[in-house]
Amino acid sequence: MSVSPLLTRLEKALRCLPGVGPRSASRMALHLLERDRERGLHLAEMLSQALEHIEHCEICSNLTETQPCPICQDVSRDPSLLCVVSSPGDILTIEQSGLFKGRYHCLSGLLSPLEGLGPKEIGLSELVQRIHNEKPVECLIALASTVEGEATTHQIVASISGPTRVTRLAQGVPVGGELDHIDVSTLSQALTSRTEIKF
Amino acid sequence: MSVSPLLTRLEKALRCLPGVGPRSASRMALHLLERDRERGLHLAEMLSQALEHIEHCEICSNLTETQPCPICQDVSRDPSLLCVVSSPGDILTIEQSGLFKGRYHCLSGLLSPLEGLGPKEIGLSELVQRIHNEKPVECLIALASTVEGEATTHQIVASISGPTRVTRLAQGVPVGGELDHIDVSTLSQALTSRTEIKF
Repeated sequence: MSVSPLLTRLEKALRCLPGVGPRSASRMALHLLERDRERGLHLAEMLSQALEHIEHCEICSNLTETQPCPICQDVSRDPSLLCVVSSPGDILTIEQSGLFKGRYHCLSGLLSPLEGLGPKEIGLSELVQRIHNEKPVECLIALASTVEGEATTHQIVASISGPTRVTRLAQGVPVGGELDHIDVSTLSQALTSRTEIKF
Repeated sequence: MSVSPLLTRLEKALRCLPGVGPRSASRMALHLLERDRERGLHLAEMLSQALEHIEHCEICSNLTETQPCPICQDVSRDPSLLCVVSSPGDILTIEQSGLFKGRYHCLSGLLSPLEGLGPKEIGLSELVQRIHNEKPVECLIALASTVEGEATTHQIVASISGPTRVTRLAQGVPVGGELDHIDVSTLSQALTSRTEIKF
């Protein structure tokens, strides 16, 4: 017997969140109702506001509530350096490093024919057009080192022409990684691209 | 650099959910914004509705949007049997078994002096008053088998007087549990309360 239909509907609605199954949803709903109504209402308000006002930047496709986004508006950033990523989350991660001062272009995912994601779906032609127009000196491709990421990288390199130098993120041993936990492909890459020690 | 202040605020708001840290919150926010705006807005609506309309039942303290709750209203349920639980989630769990046809009384937690939860905070006197008024034949105490649960059980037993028979859930080996994973206290309890096999 369902004691509260509204509670059941809230539990179902919470399952739209990634990684939330029936038990977590139930725990979350009861927690908000019993212990944290104020922050629950605040969450509802923030969800409405964010989903209503956050759009994709018309230049780089990053998520933003201003057009263009703060990064594209920022005149102090180097326009000759363009970084290609596959999701807005990657922009946040790269920004956290604080080492990249160029601009971004965000694809809508990676090429994946099995999931129906072709060049058109991920917005490849917009990227090619932008590179053609802006002619950046360097285009840094910062995509995942997976089959889909490699395929997308190849497609980008094949699609752009002109003077732009295309680079990628270095591959090698992760900082803090122990050698016996590294797979052979990564180790091969790290050996091939070994760098000179300088202090 | 924060690209979208609204996105940052949504991520912070999502952390009111139990078990959601900074990384999960970020993943949830990006998932909703990029893949599931419609269900995100539905979640916002459900949160507002539930937090606005769901209250505690004036009789049993269960969560409900009607007064009294559907279980207290249900005349087909046995008024001579009262089950005491410590949270509305426990009512849902017991209802799922489909084996209990009495009514409930929901305390606001378990006695825990360290957390400042005394008899007043968990609503013990309302339970004692209700038992005094309704004089159920049986009062089933379905509280956790923890130190706090045992202390609360003792306090309830000491507080009620009259003809009501007080019972508790059986303790023993969980269904599907293997013997070498059972702790000694549970096994001792299961041995002491061993039951005759009947087919």
